[in-house]
Amino acid sequence: MKIGLNFLPTLSPDEVAASEYYADCLSLCETADRLGFAHAKAVEHYFHPWGGYSPDPITFLAAVAQRTTRLRLVTGACVPAFTHPVKLAASLATLDNLSGGRLDAGFGRAFLPTEFAAFDIPLAESKSRMREGVSAVVKLWTESGFRWEGTHHTFGPLPPLLPRPVQTPHPPVLIAATASQDSFQWAGEQGHHLMIIPVVASHERLAELLRVYRNAREAHGHRDVPKLHVSYHAYVAEDHGTALREAEAHFDAYREKQLEAYASWRGVSSDQYPGYELMEAAVRSLTFEDLLKAGNVVVGDPDAAIQALNKVADRYPGGEISLHVRFGDITHRQAARTVHLLGRDVLPAVAHR
Amino acid sequence: MKIGLNFLPTLSPDEVAASEYYADCLSLCETADRLGFAHAKAVEHYFHPWGGYSPDPITFLAAVAQRTTRLRLVTGACVPAFTHPVKLAASLATLDNLSGGRLDAGFGRAFLPTEFAAFDIPLAESKSRMREGVSAVVKLWTESGFRWEGTHHTFGPLPPLLPRPVQTPHPPVLIAATASQDSFQWAGEQGHHLMIIPVVASHERLAELLRVYRNAREAHGHRDVPKLHVSYHAYVAEDHGTALREAEAHFDAYREKQLEAYASWRGVSSDQYPGYELMEAAVRSLTFEDLLKAGNVVVGDPDAAIQALNKVADRYPGGEISLHVRFGDITHRQAARTVHLLGRDVLPAVAHR
Repeated sequence: MKIGLNFLPTLSPDEVAASEYYADCLSLCETADRLGFAHAKAVEHYFHPWGGYSPDPITFLAAVAQRTTRLRLVTGACVPAFTHPVKLAASLATLDNLSGGRLDAGFGRAFLPTEFAAFDIPLAESKSRMREGVSAVVKLWTESGFRWEGTHHTFGPLPPLLPRPVQTPHPPVLIAATASQDSFQWAGEQGHHLMIIPVVASHERLAELLRVYRNAREAHGHRDVPKLHVSYHAYVAEDHGTALREAEAHFDAYREKQLEAYASWRGVSSDQYPGYELMEAAVRSLTFEDLLKAGNVVVGDPDAAIQALNKVADRYPGGEISLHVRFGDITHRQAARTVHLLGRDVLPAVAHR
Repeated sequence: MKIGLNFLPTLSPDEVAASEYYADCLSLCETADRLGFAHAKAVEHYFHPWGGYSPDPITFLAAVAQRTTRLRLVTGACVPAFTHPVKLAASLATLDNLSGGRLDAGFGRAFLPTEFAAFDIPLAESKSRMREGVSAVVKLWTESGFRWEGTHHTFGPLPPLLPRPVQTPHPPVLIAATASQDSFQWAGEQGHHLMIIPVVASHERLAELLRVYRNAREAHGHRDVPKLHVSYHAYVAEDHGTALREAEAHFDAYREKQLEAYASWRGVSSDQYPGYELMEAAVRSLTFEDLLKAGNVVVGDPDAAIQALNKVADRYPGGEISLHVRFGDITHRQAARTVHLLGRDVLPAVAHR
């Protein structure tokens, strides 16, 4: 089982300065690289303390690239709706070269109304912008001299984009999908890989969506083994009770921050995001106990973490796990303890899965 | 006198792979940081071997930030026309935080028709897009809750952009200006700093443009001392004759690559770029001997480099010099020699200027 770190900052400037937060993250990445973790992943979000310290995962991961030698670097996810495909393809290729071919290029639709308002893009276009953006990026990485006439972008013919990515034919493409069957279907048809967050849909629903994805992949002749990235909150301490108690408080703080961001859905609804206007209420009603019961967190002493990860491996065989180790008000010291204990006691015990 | 390195790659994949080129650059930056250089600067250009390995100076400089501790990191220049101001402000602020406040944020209009075609933006809009972009970026760094209704962008009111830049009130803003009086005037009025390339206009014309800039700055009440960045090619070797001979060959190779990019002006003309359609011919007729005679290169043994830099200091008192040490087909070994000799023999001799 491959395990990596997921960086979704939940801090505001009056809590921890961004410069300090980044320094902490880079230090965690160094430790993770040394202890055999598989990847570092960063989100793209803006403005809200929930995510806002990570508006540019490519720039952040370029820094991580210089502090690590083995970790895969995962944009989880960058948002084609907010960046022109020529810029996005070129920036990602730059990162692939700065890291000696360690990029996993993850893309997502984004979903916070604040962000769409900032970029003056209708929420209703997010799906078509993501799909067009991803397709244009892949084409720019692999072909030249073509004319692109899409719904949102028109360009070319152009010379080959520089730099060329290190990985051939191109860096792996991962699509962030949560609950829309349509997104799983499209990712499968295109032969892309997948990033999912098991909290949003039930296990049964997710199993169904993954079947849709695999069937679409097969039906469209994609024979390679797909990568499946799965994200969880993680909090590990030597003492099990301490871990549970502290994790719950941090989860509650995390949820408050998440709710502040999700509140931007108030008064908004979009037929492209069915049910998203209800998300705030859904997040509000989700408790730490719910997550624990559902096996949707990795919390406790190292033994409990091993058990939780084994359950994940049963559920998503071959899945690569992204652990969010600094959520809510978790300090760097606490996050470093989680990473250290995972690396020392947990990774060796689940490596064979 | 402060001296830094200017990275404008002139390589294609069949010469040196981008991954190798970046590794070379990062190694040069480490050396420069240790030897007392002042900055590392990177351009934003696309597609052509002239510049194309540097489509994203922010991502590149985020890597440089992790390999250095003192160098200022200069985007020289990034192009607001090609990136949304919210993205640009957030990415630059990320870099400022990743480097502990070492960002000098340089902006330019861009001028290659290939690039404008790629982003599907009329050349005629480049000036107004740059000005609106720079103004929006500065406002996003320093204010929140405002409504932006520009010619090209509409957004807000929004929460404060995250992360906040480290430097207060914001990172220094430098404007790339070459020959348009209007650009010097605007940069001065806004109180921004300046980046110039002395090759394009004559010394006399530049002196006049700098007067326009300083007068505009003063007239608009900007009392701080402006930064003035000036760029030159540099090639230093122990033996003076060898340096001259090799530099000339590399300059010729550089010019060929530059001409290939400038050829995208063929058949194009824009009233916003008066005379740019003649640039290819102007570049073609400019010889290495012309540059030497005009004191517009830093070439030779260390003594000659000291002389050349002293002349520059006479001409631009207080100017910060950006040296382009890997132009044409210069190898990493040769560029490293230039940096080493500059650091050992030249910087100490001109430090007092």
